[in-house]
Amino acid sequence: MKNRFPSLTRLLGAAAGCAIVSLPGLSAAPASSTLTQTALFARFDAMISAPLQQAWDKQMASNPNQVGSPHDKANALWELGEFKKFGWDANIEVFDVLYPTPLKEKLEILGPHPFHATLQEPAIPGDGSASETEPALPAYLAYQGDGDVTAPIVYVNYGMKADYDALARMGISVKGKIVIARYGHGWRGLKVLLAQQHGALGCIIYSDPADDGYATDSVYPKGPQRPSFGIQRGSVEDTSVMNGDPLTPGYGAVPGAKRIPIKASPAILKIPAIPISYADAEHFLALMTGDVVPAGWRGALPLTYRVGPSKVAVHLLVKSDWSLKPIYDVIAKIKGSEYPNQWVIRGNHHDGWVEGAADPLSGQVALLNEAKAIGELVKSGWRPKRTIIYTSWDGEEPGLLGSVEWTETHAAALREHTLVYINSDTNARGILYISGSQDWTAFADHLDSKVTDPETKVSVEARRRAALRVRALTPTAGAQAKFAARLAANPKDNAPLGPLGSGSDYGGFYDHLGIAALNIGYGGEGHTDGVYHSRYDTFAHQMRFGDPDFVYGTVLAKTIGHLVLAAADSTLPPQHPSDLAKAVDFFVKDIRKEEKTRRKAALRQAAMLRDNVFTLAADPTRTHGNPPALKAVPHIDLTPLESAAAHLDRAAKAYDAAFAAKGTHLSTAARARLFTIMFRIDETLSDPKGLIGRAWYKNLVSAPGRYTGYGAKTLPGVREAIEEGRWSDAHASAIQAAAAINAYCAQLKTATALLKRS
Amino acid sequence: MKNRFPSLTRLLGAAAGCAIVSLPGLSAAPASSTLTQTALFARFDAMISAPLQQAWDKQMASNPNQVGSPHDKANALWELGEFKKFGWDANIEVFDVLYPTPLKEKLEILGPHPFHATLQEPAIPGDGSASETEPALPAYLAYQGDGDVTAPIVYVNYGMKADYDALARMGISVKGKIVIARYGHGWRGLKVLLAQQHGALGCIIYSDPADDGYATDSVYPKGPQRPSFGIQRGSVEDTSVMNGDPLTPGYGAVPGAKRIPIKASPAILKIPAIPISYADAEHFLALMTGDVVPAGWRGALPLTYRVGPSKVAVHLLVKSDWSLKPIYDVIAKIKGSEYPNQWVIRGNHHDGWVEGAADPLSGQVALLNEAKAIGELVKSGWRPKRTIIYTSWDGEEPGLLGSVEWTETHAAALREHTLVYINSDTNARGILYISGSQDWTAFADHLDSKVTDPETKVSVEARRRAALRVRALTPTAGAQAKFAARLAANPKDNAPLGPLGSGSDYGGFYDHLGIAALNIGYGGEGHTDGVYHSRYDTFAHQMRFGDPDFVYGTVLAKTIGHLVLAAADSTLPPQHPSDLAKAVDFFVKDIRKEEKTRRKAALRQAAMLRDNVFTLAADPTRTHGNPPALKAVPHIDLTPLESAAAHLDRAAKAYDAAFAAKGTHLSTAARARLFTIMFRIDETLSDPKGLIGRAWYKNLVSAPGRYTGYGAKTLPGVREAIEEGRWSDAHASAIQAAAAINAYCAQLKTATALLKRS
Repeated sequence: MKNRFPSLTRLLGAAAGCAIVSLPGLSAAPASSTLTQTALFARFDAMISAPLQQAWDKQMASNPNQVGSPHDKANALWELGEFKKFGWDANIEVFDVLYPTPLKEKLEILGPHPFHATLQEPAIPGDGSASETEPALPAYLAYQGDGDVTAPIVYVNYGMKADYDALARMGISVKGKIVIARYGHGWRGLKVLLAQQHGALGCIIYSDPADDGYATDSVYPKGPQRPSFGIQRGSVEDTSVMNGDPLTPGYGAVPGAKRIPIKASPAILKIPAIPISYADAEHFLALMTGDVVPAGWRGALPLTYRVGPSKVAVHLLVKSDWSLKPIYDVIAKIKGSEYPNQWVIRGNHHDGWVEGAADPLSGQVALLNEAKAIGELVKSGWRPKRTIIYTSWDGEEPGLLGSVEWTETHAAALREHTLVYINSDTNARGILYISGSQDWTAFADHLDSKVTDPETKVSVEARRRAALRVRALTPTAGAQAKFAARLAANPKDNAPLGPLGSGSDYGGFYDHLGIAALNIGYGGEGHTDGVYHSRYDTFAHQMRFGDPDFVYGTVLAKTIGHLVLAAADSTLPPQHPSDLAKAVDFFVKDIRKEEKTRRKAALRQAAMLRDNVFTLAADPTRTHGNPPALKAVPHIDLTPLESAAAHLDRAAKAYDAAFAAKGTHLSTAARARLFTIMFRIDETLSDPKGLIGRAWYKNLVSAPGRYTGYGAKTLPGVREAIEEGRWSDAHASAIQAAAAINAYCAQLKTATALLKRS
Repeated sequence: MKNRFPSLTRLLGAAAGCAIVSLPGLSAAPASSTLTQTALFARFDAMISAPLQQAWDKQMASNPNQVGSPHDKANALWELGEFKKFGWDANIEVFDVLYPTPLKEKLEILGPHPFHATLQEPAIPGDGSASETEPALPAYLAYQGDGDVTAPIVYVNYGMKADYDALARMGISVKGKIVIARYGHGWRGLKVLLAQQHGALGCIIYSDPADDGYATDSVYPKGPQRPSFGIQRGSVEDTSVMNGDPLTPGYGAVPGAKRIPIKASPAILKIPAIPISYADAEHFLALMTGDVVPAGWRGALPLTYRVGPSKVAVHLLVKSDWSLKPIYDVIAKIKGSEYPNQWVIRGNHHDGWVEGAADPLSGQVALLNEAKAIGELVKSGWRPKRTIIYTSWDGEEPGLLGSVEWTETHAAALREHTLVYINSDTNARGILYISGSQDWTAFADHLDSKVTDPETKVSVEARRRAALRVRALTPTAGAQAKFAARLAANPKDNAPLGPLGSGSDYGGFYDHLGIAALNIGYGGEGHTDGVYHSRYDTFAHQMRFGDPDFVYGTVLAKTIGHLVLAAADSTLPPQHPSDLAKAVDFFVKDIRKEEKTRRKAALRQAAMLRDNVFTLAADPTRTHGNPPALKAVPHIDLTPLESAAAHLDRAAKAYDAAFAAKGTHLSTAARARLFTIMFRIDETLSDPKGLIGRAWYKNLVSAPGRYTGYGAKTLPGVREAIEEGRWSDAHASAIQAAAAINAYCAQLKTATALLKRS
């Protein structure tokens, strides 16, 4: 879609890689000094320090820091002290959450050749970066269902929906069996949930060397990737329905809050599950009989992968302590000088699974560095116009507990006061990735084009655009990637932000409250995936592989620091609705295409089933069956959504034109009025009723997919209803989304009218 | 494309799976008896015997039978005797060809941990099906270049063009190195040729377990696939320029023929090359330093695949005996009663690499069984109207030597007299595959719909159609597969034959002489690939896995026997030009699409190179470079070809209409006149000048790809010129192909005129 009006970025000459040109409003002199934005950023940047981040990361990652561990609490208390030293008004908020911990675990092969899975990770010789005076959490999956089960095992590949369809075609049922799935291609929680839904008694998840082990690079300590005894811990809370404490869905887990019974929680699974290493998994996979797996199911272990069942039974036992545990959120504030009731919030979690030097501490130390620098600016006399709130979340790993309970507790105030929430998490060497509210694209693009990438010396935004264009060339690149590449290739366009799904602490803000949010990090070159959620995610690993010398830790601090400072000081609205309009137009067209593709596929498949071709083409000596029948796809009325997208396009262009004509000429009072109108405009894109079938998710523009886990679905109500054959839900969701988009348009028109009459 | 006229098959109600209805003309009473075609087929079928095929295969595969081996000659002599016993007029034609054999071979790792590659295959315990009184050929690649070289090795994945492009981007040159490539994704000869073209000193080719080893199924003897010590021998003659004896290009290697010097042969490579097992390859791949390979380059050995070069040097020595050797073609004839000068030729080779129970003997014993049955029919008083010639070729493995030298020697007579050549080779359990001249589609479809598949009890044609439809659902299915599936789904259409490439003995007939040809076999369920060209391609393996009890050997004999009998007796032309017209229409549109896609890709890439995005998106700690620049694609004038395709469409429809109105009402004399016009019509589709740049290939409809090896390219002159950026060749080839198609139309119009006036 070509824009008849120049984009905000274009208007200001701030195309990627161009000279630094300030965004109007953002460059207005700070309140309590005469600093220009450029000078402010320069002073901020001067206080960003790699050695400082290294020292903090080393200290915070010196011992296991999972929820409930002494070191996790100690880190929170230490951070509280640091924030105070930096000059922030800081405190700790405590929530009491259901966080199970393992009491007893066993995974063994029965029969003539018994074998006991290790369930522990040995220390890596030469990595003394963690002193480890406290014990690491053993192999464990939080919110699995506990149990003591014995059954043959079945290999289910990645354990996603399509894998179960393929198993059914091979005549394999997992009912009464224990499944063994490999990590990857979908969130781990779905692997256990789908196993449970298909009648499995238990679930083993292992890390195949094909996915993050020796097939991908040398393993730690020789290289960055997962050693044979590496185990990926994690949560399997059913986040397709909610996030946060499973016993307080939708409200804060403050001390004394009413809890639902554990059995009543929709988020806790019913079957036992455990993660294992590939050294252990090899023993289990070698037990398999049955058909050879389809080609895409093969891992990199040197054996013939077969679906099973195993010739002998496997015994799985998990027993947990299901008591409530306290979590510690650190909340630090600097009050705004002009608009103290307008908040810019920034967060990263502090809990890990073991030492967590990369996940989450690499992001956390960047955040601390920003906080220190802002504190220094304040000490030197500068004050932000708006209130800045820095947060260090606890309990992100089990289910965004710290951030979600906080956002649920303070929901009304947060919706009323928050301009934007900016999140980070694991950070590593590489390329900027940034997801978020689409109308914040120009703001982020513009500021990111002022930060220099240390490896290539172009701006991090120019490098991001380059990567978007190159990634779209891969054979598996989807429509979203091609849309992004098309815009990234044109300096007149802003390179779109990725749509937000789930997997970090923006969930409570964006998914649940509908607040504008950005999620930012660097990566792609650090190979932190090879030690993800394992004992080998250490300071030494991060220094050697993840982010040598924390160079990208400093880049992250600068990138986000600038966004925070600019958002806190901007006198004109940071939103650029045309970018949202372009994105929505793409989403709607993409859904329409998807609907047509599915209709065609269903018709073709129906003819093939009628003609019995699947059976005729199959090898009769191997078990085979028809694929599950696709539902015939009716013509779905998406007109309201298509009209709303067109409405948004017109409204955004009108706003752009009015803004271009008048924006920078407004009086201070008019700017403030305009800002107030635009301030909460993103919240119009959510609906208090939430998505059909999962009311916790209020945001109608994007959400984590019900069957992707972290991965985002855009216009999820409509898209997933079509994907799942819920035709009336698709129509209803189209109306729901259209209403939200029209509400956005209405607010935008008010802003346009103000601009025109100013 | 919808046909306004019913297809020939439709006309006769012979849709796949329908009741058997005879094709007109084909059902006419045989010459010397009153048998109907149905009765003739029934009598023929009654003489097809699985135990007979088993016994013959066991005997012929009892010792190694590579070219020049005593047992290969013995097999030819034994077959000669059998043909005579069956009542055929048989003889042996001998050619003297350049066929090198190894004198000395060595492949070793130098340095502190020396290792010698095995280069021999141990016997498999329990497989005593071959008595092996004679030695097997060791690891060897015929027509490699001999040499004694020492250098580090570089891993080049499948060693295809795209792999070298990727290597260049990784900063790796193979100049002065020895390459190690894995088998698969392209013909082995290209691996050595491309290594040579890129300046490598030598080439090692190994069988990765990902491609036909333990990753794909259990290995022999537990399962069918390649054991760790299995070696794939083969030829690396440069068949992109010619086939047959390298010293007699284009003419017969009869005793006393003039030979070009070995060094002058365009078909013999210049560097030494050798094939090894994956047990050996693991030692070599473990030597590698350098970057980790791209994901698609990973095999299934339990190590980190790296591009290299190796940290130590490797020594490769190959020295061959380059003397001429005799080869023995068995030629057997039964003279036609009415049209003795119209020949139906059928062939399969008899030489293998070791015992060759599957390749080639599984097809060979089916051929023998057909010959025996036809002999019995003749003994019982039946005579074919046309002359039937059965051939058992020698020297196919090194380069289609026996068949090509025979076709080159008898070129003029074969072009004048041959109606069709029908080929087979390896046969296995599974689904019918049939490639060939497109105007023979209806004929093959019709007859194949009368043969019952033993596994599914539908016709082999119905099962073929089912497989075509299912295969088109795979994500990698290309336009050709989707075209075939679309027609296969519609009972009113004929399911197209695959286009002929290379790799078996139809090459001399189809590619070089332009004679109509069919290549037929069963497979897909036999896992003969796991023992391909190895010592483990034994009778025991074929009985257990390839084609248990030779059930599909009997199906192949029936399938081809019916085609031979019908072609020999048909009183009406077997060609159905509408199928050719549909195929040509698709080919032309597909090329136009390809041209547009390439133009767009070149424009996009030019912008990306201009913006330096490949460098910006790359990890600077790994070697990286720009992809090779795509040539800008001009608008290529394909109008002559598009007009010819339209011309053919009209001409074919006119013929169909005339044939439908008059065909079956013609007098015997008129039928004979019509047959004579149509008899050699396929030869119009070739040009004596041949394809630009490789004159040995005369057929303009399809040819093996210059950079695919066996795989076919349709309208190859035009398509490959576009793929390779030879724009003026593309235009010239379009004119050349258009002229051939127009010549076909002219001949077709003569036939149509005859029909109309009859």
